[in-house]
Amino acid sequence: MSEPDAKRAKTDGDHPYELTYWPLMPGRGEFVRLLFEDTNTPFTDYSKLPPQEAVARVTELVTLTNNGDAASPPIFAVPALRHGPNVLLNQTPNILQYIAPRVGLAGNGSEVDLLNLNGIVLTLLDGFSNEVHETHHPVASSQYYEDQKPEAKKRAANYVDERLPKFLGYVQRVLNGEASGDGPWLYGGQCTYADLVLFQCIHGLSYAFPKSMEKARASGNLKGVFELYEAVAERPNIKAYMESDRRVAYSDGIYRHYPELEEHVGESDDE
Amino acid sequence: MSEPDAKRAKTDGDHPYELTYWPLMPGRGEFVRLLFEDTNTPFTDYSKLPPQEAVARVTELVTLTNNGDAASPPIFAVPALRHGPNVLLNQTPNILQYIAPRVGLAGNGSEVDLLNLNGIVLTLLDGFSNEVHETHHPVASSQYYEDQKPEAKKRAANYVDERLPKFLGYVQRVLNGEASGDGPWLYGGQCTYADLVLFQCIHGLSYAFPKSMEKARASGNLKGVFELYEAVAERPNIKAYMESDRRVAYSDGIYRHYPELEEHVGESDDE
Repeated sequence: MSEPDAKRAKTDGDHPYELTYWPLMPGRGEFVRLLFEDTNTPFTDYSKLPPQEAVARVTELVTLTNNGDAASPPIFAVPALRHGPNVLLNQTPNILQYIAPRVGLAGNGSEVDLLNLNGIVLTLLDGFSNEVHETHHPVASSQYYEDQKPEAKKRAANYVDERLPKFLGYVQRVLNGEASGDGPWLYGGQCTYADLVLFQCIHGLSYAFPKSMEKARASGNLKGVFELYEAVAERPNIKAYMESDRRVAYSDGIYRHYPELEEHVGESDDE
Repeated sequence: MSEPDAKRAKTDGDHPYELTYWPLMPGRGEFVRLLFEDTNTPFTDYSKLPPQEAVARVTELVTLTNNGDAASPPIFAVPALRHGPNVLLNQTPNILQYIAPRVGLAGNGSEVDLLNLNGIVLTLLDGFSNEVHETHHPVASSQYYEDQKPEAKKRAANYVDERLPKFLGYVQRVLNGEASGDGPWLYGGQCTYADLVLFQCIHGLSYAFPKSMEKARASGNLKGVFELYEAVAERPNIKAYMESDRRVAYSDGIYRHYPELEEHVGESDDE
């Protein structure tokens, strides 16, 4: 195979999709996996290698001496997606934005659709993934949860009392808006990758903060949000995936269940 | 003017760019402004209205009863950019990704260039903007700094000791990599919006954490990072802007100077 002109070559759909991520947790890799699973798109998932090998693959990508190649800047963190010699991407929303139009999960695929979906997805990931990680690691992501527990309790209380309702309310606004179109979906009257991202967020949040999510569901103000969750859960490929052994259990990733982080929820009437 | 088909209409370069943001601080709006300033692109900046009016514009966009319109989902937070009837975007990296190819700051403008630049920019904004906000608001963005000062000191110590060097090291890896091309730039041998984003990050960090940034500069391992900063600072339009009264001083935004947050820096030899 001759060497393609890296910068100008078109991305080639015949190359395999290769996902590099940490083993033994859904993590941020899960957002990427759901796009492939929902559309039955073949992909190689290196997080499923024996754990030591999977970790070695991550380390090799993000190590200080790996500066990328002629076509691609270096990788800061995983998930990372390789798709042929000219495409190596990191940053979850960036990877999703690349895959979604190729697997038919980006609305009409127009520039405006891509941007509107990306705006929604960035907010979902901020509110339901990045900020969730902060609830158990508010001081330092490199230190143990046990060593930042008092700070975590404060941060988590603020999260479930203020931030979570604020972000869930935003999702309901999106659903109430005209641009969401018909049906349960967030945008344009059809299932897009934003819906899959929301599904994984709600699933993870329900594991991490069951009392808070039950309270949100019972409030009745967020009917559309939970209907959308159910609609994605019923999609045949998603349903099959969630029941399969390809779906990894939550562990020490973004979504962790520490009951003490929402122990105050439901204790008083004005909560 | 007849009503265009919202979903299918092309974005129209003849419409004015309208930026909505909080008044009296550079904030995340500054990343957007620099793309316009560097390229002499006219834009309306509603943050420059009398403060009460500017705040009212923000509130109107993000209020719970504003669900967007037929073309655009609702806005979660500012900065927000309107560009004609069919484009209303939020999320800083999303707005930048829209503007950059239109003003010639996105490399060759190919899909791969847009994705590679977006990957770099998302990491810059994570490490040098979002995480900086966490240093003074590790418990709750809705509470005063003074009420979360002990936690802020811990978080900031971790930031300047671990996270800041890690992210600066990543930038140097990008610059060392082949994909950065010739010259001081991050990607493809030409100035792109990623360089402007880095410039604003380093400028803000130097204000917020002067001792830590001086230490980083003196270390000698990050030569390219600071050379890039200087190269952007010398661009005529950027230079003129930074000296103009259009550039707003730092205040209660992302970049704040609280000396106590880096008081330990430089106190011991093994720091």
